[in-house]
Amino acid sequence: MKFKIEALDPKSKARAGEVTTDHGVIETPIFMPVGTMGTVKGVHQRELKEEINPDIILSNTYHLYLRPKTDIIQGAGGLHKFMNWDRPILTDSGGYQVYSLSGRRKIKEEGVKFKSHIDGSYHFFSPENVMEIQRKIGADIIMAFDECTPYPCDYNYAKRSMHMTHRWLNRCINHLEKTPEIYDYKQTFFPIVQGSTYTDLRKQSAEYIANAGAEGNAIGGLSVGEPAEEMYAMTDVVCSILPEDKPRYLMGVGTPINILENIALGVDMFDCVMPTRNARNGMLFTSEGHINIKNKKWEKDFSPIDPAAITWVDTEYSKAYLRHLFVSNEFLGKQIATIHNLGFYLWLVREARKHIIAGDFREWKDKMVKQMDNRL
Amino acid sequence: MKFKIEALDPKSKARAGEVTTDHGVIETPIFMPVGTMGTVKGVHQRELKEEINPDIILSNTYHLYLRPKTDIIQGAGGLHKFMNWDRPILTDSGGYQVYSLSGRRKIKEEGVKFKSHIDGSYHFFSPENVMEIQRKIGADIIMAFDECTPYPCDYNYAKRSMHMTHRWLNRCINHLEKTPEIYDYKQTFFPIVQGSTYTDLRKQSAEYIANAGAEGNAIGGLSVGEPAEEMYAMTDVVCSILPEDKPRYLMGVGTPINILENIALGVDMFDCVMPTRNARNGMLFTSEGHINIKNKKWEKDFSPIDPAAITWVDTEYSKAYLRHLFVSNEFLGKQIATIHNLGFYLWLVREARKHIIAGDFREWKDKMVKQMDNRL
Ligand SMILES: [Zn+2]
Ligand SMILES: [Zn+2]
Repeated sequence: MKFKIEALDPKSKARAGEVTTDHGVIETPIFMPVGTMGTVKGVHQRELKEEINPDIILSNTYHLYLRPKTDIIQGAGGLHKFMNWDRPILTDSGGYQVYSLSGRRKIKEEGVKFKSHIDGSYHFFSPENVMEIQRKIGADIIMAFDECTPYPCDYNYAKRSMHMTHRWLNRCINHLEKTPEIYDYKQTFFPIVQGSTYTDLRKQSAEYIANAGAEGNAIGGLSVGEPAEEMYAMTDVVCSILPEDKPRYLMGVGTPINILENIALGVDMFDCVMPTRNARNGMLFTSEGHINIKNKKWEKDFSPIDPAAITWVDTEYSKAYLRHLFVSNEFLGKQIATIHNLGFYLWLVREARKHIIAGDFREWKDKMVKQMDNRL
Repeated sequence: MKFKIEALDPKSKARAGEVTTDHGVIETPIFMPVGTMGTVKGVHQRELKEEINPDIILSNTYHLYLRPKTDIIQGAGGLHKFMNWDRPILTDSGGYQVYSLSGRRKIKEEGVKFKSHIDGSYHFFSPENVMEIQRKIGADIIMAFDECTPYPCDYNYAKRSMHMTHRWLNRCINHLEKTPEIYDYKQTFFPIVQGSTYTDLRKQSAEYIANAGAEGNAIGGLSVGEPAEEMYAMTDVVCSILPEDKPRYLMGVGTPINILENIALGVDMFDCVMPTRNARNGMLFTSEGHINIKNKKWEKDFSPIDPAAITWVDTEYSKAYLRHLFVSNEFLGKQIATIHNLGFYLWLVREARKHIIAGDFREWKDKMVKQMDNRL
């Protein structure tokens, strides 16, 4: 993997860059649509590529490990071939999913024992076997196995957990060295900064992670319920320590506003279920604000979904028709809203990039942040 | 509407024809995908047009009347504009849906009182108001309001019902004359032959309907549970009486084999929920037989869904991937299977048409009927 910075915004810490992987180039800042089960829910791979056009997507180790199971993905020749997606993929390590299984998992130094959400069967994730699983799944970027702490989190728990995440990082790195790549392309490993919402822990963790000398670095444990201001404060501290010449990935963030604010703090990569999950609930993001399409006020509004016309669904379908599909529980509604929202998120990061390159990102960002807060 | 017969098969009663409407030409024999709520479930209008490419689709008066309600469709300028579909549409009259609401409807000479399946509210359909509703929905082909009898059906009930359907037909025709078209294109009215599985009643009804002198005629009350042989016997009797120079539409039929056999008896138009409903249950139709994609035998089969490659999904996705989507309850599975099945049904009627024109339909049909009966 190579990373090149192309432009720095003069009035913020925003950067425009280019990550080169064996499956192609990723222009940053980038938003990665989430394809949990090897599918971005309701979107054909062809549509994803041609209409939404993300340089990279994300998939989930925990989910793929349980279904279809790792050996089937390996049998297909890796996730790219299994799902027929030839651009870069990033897999998370399962740390976040396992953390979400509270009451159904036990975290120890050795690793995490957990109960499948599907059939209640018991499984064990360790830094070692998660590296092996991610080798078999075959994403271009693979993540360290970490513990994600909840919000709020007791200081002592956060500190102990952070150090365990650091020890797990060493085990990940050691085991990866002994676990050769299976496919004919390189995999890049990203470690993860933890430390909850404590500035001193975040600093300590960012330094530890920076010292690992990885080709890219991630910030985890945010967007778990803390106020946006705390999130931005932590991102700012961490970005000031993580190396400038490596891409920075803020995991699980966020709203369109969160994304713009974190770009301004020096983040390059994002993922979040929000555009897809909210789409399935009838929430549309637009540059003028958000829309609840199930609202009765759209019942007879035969105007296009979004005059901005970022994706073709925006003008091929009317608000009244889309509302009808949601009210009638027709899946096409969810399909349309998903394409719209992902199209909007990708448009947003592409625009951010243009403005960074043009040198007026900060002004544009401030205007957009105000605008997008409306409820239409 | 115009209808032109282009070829007759020498060894069967199959015909290849062309129906011309104000929204375009329909090459027959044709299968009409079902878009109950103004959407073919899980398929974008753009995909439907470009990939599946049917000349006409069907939508349901009963469902559209309840949701989004007739006035909203009229507000959009008719169903074509509401759903953004510029090719021909046929609407059924609601007779079949109302019949399916057994226990929630009361049929009288005046019309049918029924309880909405959505909210339990009471509604009334009569030959008169169903014509008005269909004017407002604005399909190119609109259907008479009839009573569909169950199978098996007592002879006397079937006879009384048939005569009521005939009286309702007169009321439909009289009321249509007084109800002008709303949009800037013509609507064509099709009456419906009833008579259950009784040859004498079917003959009587076919003569009555033929005498109505409509521009096209339909056969209703079949594919309601009767053995295929009885269905074919009834179609044969009715087709021998209905005028040759008008298109014949067999409502609600059926399996790929049913369609080929009925084409051989002189039917020109079909509709059925089978390809779409079965798709959503993981049943795929192919020219070699049918597939239950949820079956464990496909778990590690990384070959294309269907080597016949009728639609792009057939080769872009593997059987193992499609199975994974179904097992994981991912909606993309239903989307893929729906495109595949509709693509296959349209391919089937297009091939039938080619073979009728080539003069070897009968031989091809006999071969296909054997082949498609396999379970793969
Ligand atoms: Zn440490
Ligand atoms: Zn009669």
